[in-house]
Amino acid sequence: MGQSIIKLPGPIYIAGASTVVGHEEFAGPLGEYFDFHDPKDDTFGMDTWEKAESEMQRMAVGSLLGRSKLKDGDIAALFSGDLLNQCTGSAYGLLSYNIPFFGLYGACSTAAEGLCLGSLYAATVGGRVISAVSSHYCSAERQFRYPMEYGGQRPPTAQWTVTGAAAFLLSDQRESYYPRDVENECLPRITEVMPGISVDRGISDANNMGAAMAPAALDTLMRYFSESGLSPDAFDLIVTGDLGAEGSSILCDFARAAGLDIAAVHTDCGNMIYDAAATDKHAGGSGCGCSAVVTAGYLLHEMRAGRLRDILFLGTGALMSPMSVQQGQSIPGIAHLVRITTA
Amino acid sequence: MGQSIIKLPGPIYIAGASTVVGHEEFAGPLGEYFDFHDPKDDTFGMDTWEKAESEMQRMAVGSLLGRSKLKDGDIAALFSGDLLNQCTGSAYGLLSYNIPFFGLYGACSTAAEGLCLGSLYAATVGGRVISAVSSHYCSAERQFRYPMEYGGQRPPTAQWTVTGAAAFLLSDQRESYYPRDVENECLPRITEVMPGISVDRGISDANNMGAAMAPAALDTLMRYFSESGLSPDAFDLIVTGDLGAEGSSILCDFARAAGLDIAAVHTDCGNMIYDAAATDKHAGGSGCGCSAVVTAGYLLHEMRAGRLRDILFLGTGALMSPMSVQQGQSIPGIAHLVRITTA
Repeated sequence: MGQSIIKLPGPIYIAGASTVVGHEEFAGPLGEYFDFHDPKDDTFGMDTWEKAESEMQRMAVGSLLGRSKLKDGDIAALFSGDLLNQCTGSAYGLLSYNIPFFGLYGACSTAAEGLCLGSLYAATVGGRVISAVSSHYCSAERQFRYPMEYGGQRPPTAQWTVTGAAAFLLSDQRESYYPRDVENECLPRITEVMPGISVDRGISDANNMGAAMAPAALDTLMRYFSESGLSPDAFDLIVTGDLGAEGSSILCDFARAAGLDIAAVHTDCGNMIYDAAATDKHAGGSGCGCSAVVTAGYLLHEMRAGRLRDILFLGTGALMSPMSVQQGQSIPGIAHLVRITTA
Repeated sequence: MGQSIIKLPGPIYIAGASTVVGHEEFAGPLGEYFDFHDPKDDTFGMDTWEKAESEMQRMAVGSLLGRSKLKDGDIAALFSGDLLNQCTGSAYGLLSYNIPFFGLYGACSTAAEGLCLGSLYAATVGGRVISAVSSHYCSAERQFRYPMEYGGQRPPTAQWTVTGAAAFLLSDQRESYYPRDVENECLPRITEVMPGISVDRGISDANNMGAAMAPAALDTLMRYFSESGLSPDAFDLIVTGDLGAEGSSILCDFARAAGLDIAAVHTDCGNMIYDAAATDKHAGGSGCGCSAVVTAGYLLHEMRAGRLRDILFLGTGALMSPMSVQQGQSIPGIAHLVRITTA
C-alpha cells in the first residue's frame, strides 16, 4: 500500500519560485540566488518578529504571483506552514490572498510536505498550487529557546534557525515563470514523492535536532532505494534539509552501516546557507525556511541551468515542542522525499 | 480553477470511525455514541494533560485498526492535527504507527481539512487513509487561556474546548468496519470537498471565536450553493463545527441577509455535545475534537441508520494564537466543506 513511492500520474512542473531572506542569509554563500532580503534589521517593516515572518511569506507568494502575472483565481490552493505556535506565520501572511488554504505542520520538513501534498493536489484537482513556508530566527529563538535579549550560549550541535520564506508554484501544465537568468532553461518537475514515517530513536536533546532527524531521513532513504531498485549514484544530489553538520554525519554513517553509501552525493541545506568559517552558526542552518530557500533559490537555479538533472530532496522535521521536551519526551523525526528532475 | 467544488473521481467511503472522549462529553446528550471515555479524571493514565491528549489520539487510531483488523501496512497515510503548539498531540500520539504521516494545522477546522486532503489522497494514491484529530480541555485551557488552577471566569460568548479524539477510516473500496449497531446499514461516503479561504472580518476577541469563524463559514457556503445550483433544503443537515451558539446565530443571520436561508437545516457540533441547561459551557463546545467526535460518533451513526442521507459538514477554524491576539491582530477564520452522503 502507501508505504511506498508514489509516482505522480503526470509530471508536476515547478513553474516558478520566490525567496525572501534575512541579511545574514543574504550575506552567505548563496546570497546571490535569493530574490529579496531585508538589508537592515530583518523586521521587514513590521513591529514584531512574528509579523515580520508573516510579511516574508506574504512577499514570497506575492512576488511569485506578480512575476507570473497570475491572479488569485488562477491558483487552486495554497499549502503552507511554519514553526510558530498555531502556524500564525502562514495564517496571517497569506490572509490577503483569496485562495483556498491548507495549513500544514511538519516542523522543518514542511517545505517537502507541502511539495508532496501540493503536487498530489495539482495532479488530482488540476491546475496550479502554491506551496509556501517561512521561519524567522528571532521569532523562533524566543519561542523555542530564550528571549533575544538574554543572549543565551549555544552548544556546538545547535543549529541556527534561518530567516527565510519561499513559495513554489506547482503546475500540471508545462509553463515557466522564472526570471531569464539562465540559457537553455531546463524546467524542473516533480515525478515522485514518498511521505515520511515518524521515527523516534530516543534523542531528547533539543540542541541536537540533527541527531533526532537523521534516523527518519535514513528510514525514508532506505525505503526509497529498496523499492526503486536504484542506487544513490543514479542521482546528482541527495539533499536533506536540515540535518546540519552533526545530523549529516550521523546520516552518512548510519547509511553506510546499512549498506547504502550516499556520502559522495549527499549534501544538506543547513550546511550550505551560511559560511561555517566566518560565522557562529555552529551546526548550520535549520527551520522551515532553510531547506525551502536553498531549494527554491539555489537548487532550482542549478537544475534550470542544467548543472543538476535529477535530485532527491528530503525535508526533515523534528516533531517536538518546548513543552514535550520539558516533559521529558524524546524527539520524533520525520523525512518526506520529493524527486525533482529535468530529465 | 480551484476556488470551486472538487468532485472526487470516485466516492471515498468512510469505512469506519472511532471516538474517545472525556467524562463530561460522555455525560452529555451524545454520550452513548462515543466508543471510549475516561470515567475518572480525563488523564487516560498519563501524568500530563498533553500526554493524555496524545493517548486519546493513539487510542482512536488503535481501536479503529483493531476493530477493522487492519495492519499499519494496510493504511496509505495518516493525516492528523491538533491545537497544541507544534501539534505534539498528533506527533506523539501517532508515533507508534508505522504509517506515512502528514501533520496538519487548521485549528478547529482540522477534522474537515483532514477529510478533504485524506479523501483526495485516497482517490489519487488509492487504498486507505486515516484522518485523526484531538483536543483536550485541560491542555488547551492552560495553553490558550489560564492555568487550570487559576479558575478564570469566562464570558458568555466563550466556548468550551472538548476533550475528544476521533479517527476516520477512508477507503476507495466499498468496505465497512463499524460495530453492528444498526440494521440495513447505509455506508457513508465523501463525494465532494470544497477547501476554505481565510476570511478576517476584524474580530479580535479571543473569547468570541464563533463571531470570527462565522464569516468564513458563510463564504464557503455561499460559494458552494452558488456553484452547485443546489438550495439548502437539498440537504438533511448543514452542520458546522464549531461556531457554538453565538457564531451559529451570526451565520444564520448573515446567510439570510445574503439570500440563503439555512436556519431550517443548520446545526452546529458545538451546540450538540453538551447539555446547555445543565452545564456551564456557555456558548457550547469547540476544539478540533468537538466536530470530529460529533461527526464520527453521532452523525455517521445517523447516516448509517438511514436517518440522515446527505449532509454538508463545514469544519470551521480560528487561525489565531495567544501571541497574535496579544499583538493586537484580529482573528482569521476558515471553513472547509465536506459533502457526506449515503444516497
